[in-house]
Amino acid sequence: MADSTVSRQVLICRGENVHSEQRAVVRETPLTILLGERELVTLLTDGTWLDELAVGFLHNEGLLDTGEQLRSVRVDEKRGEALVDAAIDIKLVDSVYGKRLITSGCGKGSIFYHVLDAVKAGRVKVESDLTLSTAFIYKYARELAGASDTYKKSRGVHGAALLGRAGVVCFREDIGRHNALDKLAGHLLLQGRRAVDMSLYTTGRVTSEVLLKAGRMGLPIILSRSMPIEMALQLAEQLGITVVGGLRAESCTIFTHPERIVADTPQK
Amino acid sequence: MADSTVSRQVLICRGENVHSEQRAVVRETPLTILLGERELVTLLTDGTWLDELAVGFLHNEGLLDTGEQLRSVRVDEKRGEALVDAAIDIKLVDSVYGKRLITSGCGKGSIFYHVLDAVKAGRVKVESDLTLSTAFIYKYARELAGASDTYKKSRGVHGAALLGRAGVVCFREDIGRHNALDKLAGHLLLQGRRAVDMSLYTTGRVTSEVLLKAGRMGLPIILSRSMPIEMALQLAEQLGITVVGGLRAESCTIFTHPERIVADTPQK
Repeated sequence: MADSTVSRQVLICRGENVHSEQRAVVRETPLTILLGERELVTLLTDGTWLDELAVGFLHNEGLLDTGEQLRSVRVDEKRGEALVDAAIDIKLVDSVYGKRLITSGCGKGSIFYHVLDAVKAGRVKVESDLTLSTAFIYKYARELAGASDTYKKSRGVHGAALLGRAGVVCFREDIGRHNALDKLAGHLLLQGRRAVDMSLYTTGRVTSEVLLKAGRMGLPIILSRSMPIEMALQLAEQLGITVVGGLRAESCTIFTHPERIVADTPQK
Repeated sequence: MADSTVSRQVLICRGENVHSEQRAVVRETPLTILLGERELVTLLTDGTWLDELAVGFLHNEGLLDTGEQLRSVRVDEKRGEALVDAAIDIKLVDSVYGKRLITSGCGKGSIFYHVLDAVKAGRVKVESDLTLSTAFIYKYARELAGASDTYKKSRGVHGAALLGRAGVVCFREDIGRHNALDKLAGHLLLQGRRAVDMSLYTTGRVTSEVLLKAGRMGLPIILSRSMPIEMALQLAEQLGITVVGGLRAESCTIFTHPERIVADTPQK
């Protein structure tokens, strides 16, 4: 895996004192996803886990449903390209990329109306009987708060994790919260695993796009260190997704579908 | 101006205790920008200062250069539309919107390669002899940290401000840091003001898009509470923009063009 930071000489000012120091800064590198011969999209990424990012993006955008559709994914780091060979309906590609939406969060707006129509029509719903205790939530709030070396070094990334009943299944980071989420989706697809009984942890705010991506991945619970946006909560209610925000070591706020969260005495 | 938050009933968990409470959540509402009859783009926004957002977006995307080109902007809040009448070359619109780039930050990627080409060719450079003292920087780091009521209520927005020599010229917020920046650009354009001798304050990370937008606005100094991304710093060096990150009440980190920052004794 490529290193996601570079070292830079900077000036640190503390009060009236200034000194020179080496600091880690997150890289930002373009990745163009090619579907066969077709240039689909260029993402800006920290340059790590590019195969997962490419495959997960296609999944979360609604183009790739299962791992069986995927024939191969080849990343050319030098050229900044991911070449995906998959059984994807080109008509679907045209229809998804026909509408242009730019969003507040990450701009992968193509998914937006496409999936939104399906949600509004009640055709999509996350079905799961997963419940989490507040003790479990606090435990991973503490554990994952310290999980990111890159964040500690550079404070330039968002982190996201899949939590299974037994703990952390996968932890990924990127410049944008959406890329981190797409990497998780790609991880599942490439490993041939399903997200049944998993919950999503994210450091970023819960926008409608994060919500729709989580719905696409079939995740019934979102745990966020930040706060949700109203439109995301409306979608969460319709999709049947529990949104927990403001996650801290010993506290959190439940915004939707609280029936999946069980309050209990924190484990010592 | 529309209220950017709605009130929601939520469950607050503190340790093993759970209680119900009203909480403010930031709205997320679509705004479609129409250029004449042509539907250009749909942004997701908190719903405030929509005329500024529409005009500033067109400016920062490289479509609208001066206020003289703008004939009118009319916002229809119910339909979520901003109707812009301006002397904009339709061929330019086609060329800018011909390439599709989705970025980590906010996805207004259409500007990206367009402006990037110009930067790389050395055709764009921010010219300004503005300098700031660390005392000035710390003063506004403190003042602006408490500036946002919406943030305090909902923790769901990014803030951005234009700082003149005499203080804050304009402070705007939105769900995404790019929207907040576009509102500032729109404010200047609608007021017929130029950004000469102003610096930019932002709560968000400095990505290459933030950098390019600041360059487009002619802002020589960016002050950010968060950290920059490497590609932004390379662009900042080429464009001649000073990037200061990790802004706190009594400290900050200078990443590029430190000649504009003068260390001095903080004002008491």
